[in-house]
Amino acid sequence: MQSQLRKQLIDAFTNNKDEFLSGQYLADLIGCSRTAVWKHMEELRKEGFELEAIRKKGYRIVKTPENITADEIRFGLKTKFLGQSIHYEESVESTQKIAHRLAYDQAAEGTVVVAEEQVAGRGRMDRVWHSPKYTGVWMSIILRPNIPIPKAPQLTLLAAVAVVQAIEEVTTVTPQIKWPNDILINGKKVTGILTELQAEADRINSVIIGIGINVNQQMEDYPEELRTIATSLSIESGKRINRADLIRSAFNRLEHLYELYLEKGFLPIKLLWESYAISIGKMITARTLSGSIRGRALGITEDGVLKIEDTEGIVHQVYSADIELE
Amino acid sequence: MQSQLRKQLIDAFTNNKDEFLSGQYLADLIGCSRTAVWKHMEELRKEGFELEAIRKKGYRIVKTPENITADEIRFGLKTKFLGQSIHYEESVESTQKIAHRLAYDQAAEGTVVVAEEQVAGRGRMDRVWHSPKYTGVWMSIILRPNIPIPKAPQLTLLAAVAVVQAIEEVTTVTPQIKWPNDILINGKKVTGILTELQAEADRINSVIIGIGINVNQQMEDYPEELRTIATSLSIESGKRINRADLIRSAFNRLEHLYELYLEKGFLPIKLLWESYAISIGKMITARTLSGSIRGRALGITEDGVLKIEDTEGIVHQVYSADIELE
Repeated sequence: MQSQLRKQLIDAFTNNKDEFLSGQYLADLIGCSRTAVWKHMEELRKEGFELEAIRKKGYRIVKTPENITADEIRFGLKTKFLGQSIHYEESVESTQKIAHRLAYDQAAEGTVVVAEEQVAGRGRMDRVWHSPKYTGVWMSIILRPNIPIPKAPQLTLLAAVAVVQAIEEVTTVTPQIKWPNDILINGKKVTGILTELQAEADRINSVIIGIGINVNQQMEDYPEELRTIATSLSIESGKRINRADLIRSAFNRLEHLYELYLEKGFLPIKLLWESYAISIGKMITARTLSGSIRGRALGITEDGVLKIEDTEGIVHQVYSADIELE
Repeated sequence: MQSQLRKQLIDAFTNNKDEFLSGQYLADLIGCSRTAVWKHMEELRKEGFELEAIRKKGYRIVKTPENITADEIRFGLKTKFLGQSIHYEESVESTQKIAHRLAYDQAAEGTVVVAEEQVAGRGRMDRVWHSPKYTGVWMSIILRPNIPIPKAPQLTLLAAVAVVQAIEEVTTVTPQIKWPNDILINGKKVTGILTELQAEADRINSVIIGIGINVNQQMEDYPEELRTIATSLSIESGKRINRADLIRSAFNRLEHLYELYLEKGFLPIKLLWESYAISIGKMITARTLSGSIRGRALGITEDGVLKIEDTEGIVHQVYSADIELE
C-alpha cells in the first residue's frame, strides 16, 4: 500500500498539472524534509515516471509509466473513496482472492486490488479468465452497501454501466452490455464482471466486484479458441490505451453511479443500463439451472431481473442465466 | 490436517472399541509398516491418548485426552462427510476466518475448523464472542448447499436444532432456542451460531457456520458483566462434559438434519425448531434496522421468518432482528 506521504505528493502534482513544484513547496505542503521529498521523487523515477527537474523551479511530471502502480493510478484521481486505498501487485492468483481477505479483515469501502497479471483469474461460475501481464485491467473493488442481499446482483449491472462509460471516455468506441455481466464490442467480449459477497445469513458485509478489461492485447496474443469471442480495446479502437487513465475513469464513474444508487435506488441505473444493453428486443436463449428459455428480451425489471417473452407470449423473469444472442 | 493413515488408524479403533488390535493387523489393514503404526501410536500418546499395549495382543485405547484434536474427534465419528476433514488449531483469531480462507480455496463440503481458543471470536454483527482456552467448543463448518441465497438463514435454524439435540445427547439438560441463533439454558446463553456466506451475486459458493458452545467454564471463569447472561453446560448440568463427544454428536445431528433439509426442504426443520423454541406465544420485542416491533411471537413461517403479532393484531414478518423476551 502507498504511504500517506506518497499519496499527498502525487495529489500535489495532480492538482497542479504541468506546473513545476519546488522541493521546499512540497516539503512544506506535506510536512516533511526536502530530503524525504527527494527520496520519494527518486522512487517515482524508478517506477517509470519521467520527471523534469529544473534548478530553482522544482519538479514536474512529464510522462507517466506504462504500468499501473498505485502511484500511477493516483496521479489524476479525484474520487472521494473509490481507489483511495490501492493494493498493487505484479502478479497474483486472482485479485478477487486478495480482495476477499482484505474485505474479511475490515478493509475500508472503496479499497481496490490491482494486478499486472492474474495466473488463476476466474469469472462467473469458476470459469477461467485469461489475464496476461501488462495488457489488461485486472482489479477487484470492495464496497459495503447497506442493502438487502437479494439486491446484490444490481451492483453487477451498475458496474457494467460504469465500465462502459469509462471505455467511452478513454476510447472512441461504444461498447454494449450483455446481461448480466459481459461487455462486448462488435459482438466480442472485452470485459467481464464478477460480483461476489461476504455476508451474514441476512446482512451483507462486503461486496467484492471483480472487473477484467482486455485493453492492449493484440489478436495474436489470444489463444486460437478465444479469437472469435474475445477482443480488446486496442484491437477495436486501433490504438494503444493508457490503462491507468481507464482505471481512474472507471473509479470516477463507479463512485458516481454508486452514490446515485444508494441515494435514488436502482431506477436511474436501470435506465442507463438499458441504454447500453445489446439484447433488448432481440431473440435470445437464456440457460438457467432449471432449463432453457427462448424468447424476446424485453428489458429488465425495476429490480434488475431480466424479462423474456417466450414464443407463446408468456413473460419469464430470469434471475440468473447465461444468455445467447441469435 | 490429519494424514489419511492417521485417519484409518483411528477408524480401526473406532470400529473395534475396547478391543486389542495388533501392530501387524493395523499395518496390514492400512497398508504400511509396523514401524509406521508404532510411530503413529506414539504420536497419539503424546496428544494425550492413554494406550494399553500388551505383547502378542496389541494396542487398545483406554482413555482419550481432554483436548479436541482431530484425532480425538475422529475416534468414534461415524459421519459421511461432516468432519471428515478437520483443521485443529490450539489458538486462532477466529475459526470463521480460517474457514473463510479454506472455503475460498475450494475446501470440501463438511470441512471443519476447530480451535481450543479464539482470541478474536465474533458473533453476529461483529459482536465479541468470549472463547477461552480448553473450556468450550469453537468451530466452523463449511457447507455447499445448492439453495438460493435468500434461504441461507434457514441453515442457522437447522444448526441450532442440531446443537440442541447434541446437548441433549451428552448432558441431561434440554436447552431452548431463541430466534434466530442463540441457545439458552435457564434463560442464559450457552451457544451462539453465526451463519456466513461466500456467494456470487446470485449463487451460494459456500456457507460457513460458526458454532460457539460454552462447555466447561465455571461461573468464576466469566467476567462479571457476562455472569447474568451467559452460562455453560457444566454449570447447568453440574458435571464436566467431554467436548469431543459433544462435537461428534453435533456433527452427526447436523449431517442428518442437513441431508433431510436438502431432500425434504425446510418443513421438517421448522417443526423441530418450533419444538425447541423459547419465544413462541410469548411477548417479545424485536429490534430491527428499521425500528422495534413489540408483540406476541407466533412462530416462524415455512421459510423460517419470524412472525410477530403486535398489540393491534397486525402480523409482522421479521427477517433479521435482535429479540428480547419479556
